[in-house]
Amino acid sequence: MDRPIGVIDSGFGGLTVAKEIMRQLPKEKIVYIGDSARCPYGPRSTEEVRQFTWEMIYELLNKQVKMIVIACNTATAVVLEEARIALEIPVIGVIQPGAVRAMQTTKNQHIAVIGTTGTISSHAYTSALTAISEDVQVESLACPLFVPLVEQGILNGQEAEQIVATSLEPLADSLFDTLILGCTHYPLLKPVIEKAMPNHVHVISSGEETAREVSSLLHYHNLNRTAACPPIHRFYTTGEAEPFREFAERWLTINAQNVDTISLKRGLANRVGLKW
Amino acid sequence: MDRPIGVIDSGFGGLTVAKEIMRQLPKEKIVYIGDSARCPYGPRSTEEVRQFTWEMIYELLNKQVKMIVIACNTATAVVLEEARIALEIPVIGVIQPGAVRAMQTTKNQHIAVIGTTGTISSHAYTSALTAISEDVQVESLACPLFVPLVEQGILNGQEAEQIVATSLEPLADSLFDTLILGCTHYPLLKPVIEKAMPNHVHVISSGEETAREVSSLLHYHNLNRTAACPPIHRFYTTGEAEPFREFAERWLTINAQNVDTISLKRGLANRVGLKW
Repeated sequence: MDRPIGVIDSGFGGLTVAKEIMRQLPKEKIVYIGDSARCPYGPRSTEEVRQFTWEMIYELLNKQVKMIVIACNTATAVVLEEARIALEIPVIGVIQPGAVRAMQTTKNQHIAVIGTTGTISSHAYTSALTAISEDVQVESLACPLFVPLVEQGILNGQEAEQIVATSLEPLADSLFDTLILGCTHYPLLKPVIEKAMPNHVHVISSGEETAREVSSLLHYHNLNRTAACPPIHRFYTTGEAEPFREFAERWLTINAQNVDTISLKRGLANRVGLKW
Repeated sequence: MDRPIGVIDSGFGGLTVAKEIMRQLPKEKIVYIGDSARCPYGPRSTEEVRQFTWEMIYELLNKQVKMIVIACNTATAVVLEEARIALEIPVIGVIQPGAVRAMQTTKNQHIAVIGTTGTISSHAYTSALTAISEDVQVESLACPLFVPLVEQGILNGQEAEQIVATSLEPLADSLFDTLILGCTHYPLLKPVIEKAMPNHVHVISSGEETAREVSSLLHYHNLNRTAACPPIHRFYTTGEAEPFREFAERWLTINAQNVDTISLKRGLANRVGLKW
């Protein structure tokens, strides 16, 4: 099936998921929308997150995607279930893949999750993990400075290290063996986060895990792209195109020639792919 | 949903998958059928493998399972696609999860697969891997002695080491960085196999990966068990119950009190869960 996979995020973070999809599924075409103009979603109200996310979903449906990846934890927590009910194409969020992998990895049933204020206060990871096992112990910590840090391109050096170390201090006395990066921006800070953690802690990136789930579900639904020509990816941002392209190329070494600014309109969406 | 997950295999091998499901999904109930009386499936004809596997599937449908895991690579290669078409409940095989994980793991796009003669000559892994990426290089090697070794409980020591090392010799000059254990019996030989491999090779166990896929799909289909009481698992074998119980408890530390011998009958199945 030659239709693209749609990936949406509040900004740059979902690019970590898109990059992993490109790596794990090199034949697949991606359409990416980053809502950089309204990023971050973390501190926004549930209603705003719902509205903005549905605007991006409508845009993806107009672009005839065969699957949607909500590559933003905050948006996943708010919209995933209703999008699965409303849409006929598969919809994947970033919370369940991270939770499933953490359960596969942990040896002491003690897991920590870091994310935005919105994700942490939604208890989405705690719910996902305890739905799997009641014996699992979960620590949650909001790290509201990490997304702004990433969006400004401060991914290493003294400032990044200091902010990360200070933010993670509340977890210092906890005995978890697995840490979930519960925000798609955080893998860009992974080296700095790993440095601030004891050696025995496994750090799980939602991007890698979600890409893996995309791969499984594409096959499960028989949706793999089989066209022989290499895929051409498209990137859209609600912000300025040039900084987006620069970020994608500099920090994610993604070839992002096709970046356009897009304006998302609230209103009647094209109903293709909608059940109602 | 209180209904069990059904797991089938030609013999003991699928217990490695069942054990991982128990570990990763401790709330779920499992019904296991091992066709020990007719094991191994590897050297059998496609028609025999098809018939025996469908007999187990019918038995699981009578037991009201909510999902079926074909925890046998040979049976997956022959029956998975037709079972997915015929059944309304989700059906998971062991080939795709191993292939997806190998694509996630490999750095040099060079993967080796070992399995039974039936699995290797079906080219199921090569097809699954090249469907994902045409740039991947795949070496395949049939290791027909490994299943009999495991079924006899020879899992370590000089004999096991010698047979494993000799069997794997044809791969010695190959530069793969990821090895798929393409048979659910093989994880029981994992320490011996790892010893025979260079240190940098990642060994992927289909059991772990399939359990992870079960976890993802249970959530995707909203089928998780939520009952508060601990699950009681049931085990059936077409062979003798006592050696089965001993094997499960000794080598897999599975509490397998509920083992019964079952006879599988060809003929009209209960059509519950069948689409036609």
